[in-house]
Amino acid sequence: MAKELSIIKVGGKVVEHTDTMNQLLNDFEKLPDPKILVHGGGNIASSIAKKLGYEVKMVEGRRVTDENMLDVVTMVYGGLVNKKVVAQLQARGCNALGLTGADLNLLEASKRPAEPIDYGLVGDIKEVHTQTLANLLDQGITPVIAPLSHDGEGQILNTNADTIAAHLAMALGKIFVTNLVFCLDKKGVLQDVDDDESLIKKLDHQTYKKLKSGKIIHEGMLPKLENGFSALQAGVDKVFVTDIHALKSPSFGGTRLTLS
Amino acid sequence: MAKELSIIKVGGKVVEHTDTMNQLLNDFEKLPDPKILVHGGGNIASSIAKKLGYEVKMVEGRRVTDENMLDVVTMVYGGLVNKKVVAQLQARGCNALGLTGADLNLLEASKRPAEPIDYGLVGDIKEVHTQTLANLLDQGITPVIAPLSHDGEGQILNTNADTIAAHLAMALGKIFVTNLVFCLDKKGVLQDVDDDESLIKKLDHQTYKKLKSGKIIHEGMLPKLENGFSALQAGVDKVFVTDIHALKSPSFGGTRLTLS
Repeated sequence: MAKELSIIKVGGKVVEHTDTMNQLLNDFEKLPDPKILVHGGGNIASSIAKKLGYEVKMVEGRRVTDENMLDVVTMVYGGLVNKKVVAQLQARGCNALGLTGADLNLLEASKRPAEPIDYGLVGDIKEVHTQTLANLLDQGITPVIAPLSHDGEGQILNTNADTIAAHLAMALGKIFVTNLVFCLDKKGVLQDVDDDESLIKKLDHQTYKKLKSGKIIHEGMLPKLENGFSALQAGVDKVFVTDIHALKSPSFGGTRLTLS
Repeated sequence: MAKELSIIKVGGKVVEHTDTMNQLLNDFEKLPDPKILVHGGGNIASSIAKKLGYEVKMVEGRRVTDENMLDVVTMVYGGLVNKKVVAQLQARGCNALGLTGADLNLLEASKRPAEPIDYGLVGDIKEVHTQTLANLLDQGITPVIAPLSHDGEGQILNTNADTIAAHLAMALGKIFVTNLVFCLDKKGVLQDVDDDESLIKKLDHQTYKKLKSGKIIHEGMLPKLENGFSALQAGVDKVFVTDIHALKSPSFGGTRLTLS
């Protein structure tokens, strides 16, 4: 029987605050192996960019990455956030290894075409080197993955962390029974973004499309859910959108996405 | 017979300029496996720190690392420099993996005592996890190592890149026939720092001590040489101080340090 793998994506306010991050890492460490942590860090990157005098430019909620901004995200995602998480996990006895998509050629991407919107140095994933990751997991190593890919020709590219988590799940889902968990600062998908009690515990694809067209679901949640449903369609076992407390329970909780 | 391993330390102006760095990486890629690259990046860190409004403080030529500066070196060494090198090596077909001492618990250190000089969050290496590195090398992986260690309790520490290179050589020298090459922007150890023709081709320990007490050797070179002689005393096969052109030749060239 295939082994069970957990891929936890953590972003937003969880990453930015030491106390929530440490709480998450306490619970993450206790999850059974094999497991992978994928992190974001966008707000920290924006804050450092501003301090350095670089303009932070977003189009339709996504970052435009020019050369200066690429340096910033390479520093912040690949260095500052990634290595702090690795050191904290090592302190908890978890054999963490920080990685970007350039390391071991894990994530090959191509630069997104400049039309219709020029996002700059942003990568769309072409290939996940699944066997390399599986080898690391077999050795008891816990990959901690920063949202950066590369084009194989020396160029690092900025890639959305939710998308990376989903691609990893889709690739590794062929080898492992894979749980993909998007961990955020809300309980899950909410009917009313201001009401934590309006949690949708199970969201099937049909209902999702209705809620989406009725603009019931918060805009910022849409890319996460699109990624989540793509993962399910590609054979990933279970997908959850949940808050950090969910890692305490083996059933994860929050909102579980289902195809039907 | 034990395999031959090359550990190349590159720092200073070589790292700062894309053209010299690319030239070095072209030659590094052609070196036979197994090999390790250790890099610095101090001037880039100082420049980013100044842009962020942080004071850059040096005592006796060594950086004082407060919390802000630790964030900067974690970003610059662990992220910016490390991941650019990794992406460039991958583009050359070299299976590079960027690492700090926290990743895989490679380099355990203790914070340097605050007396006689308080350097802040600086680590003195306690242990190199040799077998972990040897396993990576056995898998055809080329470690690219940033000058950061950790205390095993969640704290990243700033550690001199020359010292890391020497410690790696001493640890791996027990398994491999190890060449340690300090690669800088001078031809090697010079009798006269302003005269490239004054290269000392072979420097034995006795002569080194004489030149040191006579203040013939440039101050900035001393820690590198101390590290180099320590490595030889611990059983490292060959130690060189040389410029980037030296990687073109299997005999490395520049200044070779010898015990007698």
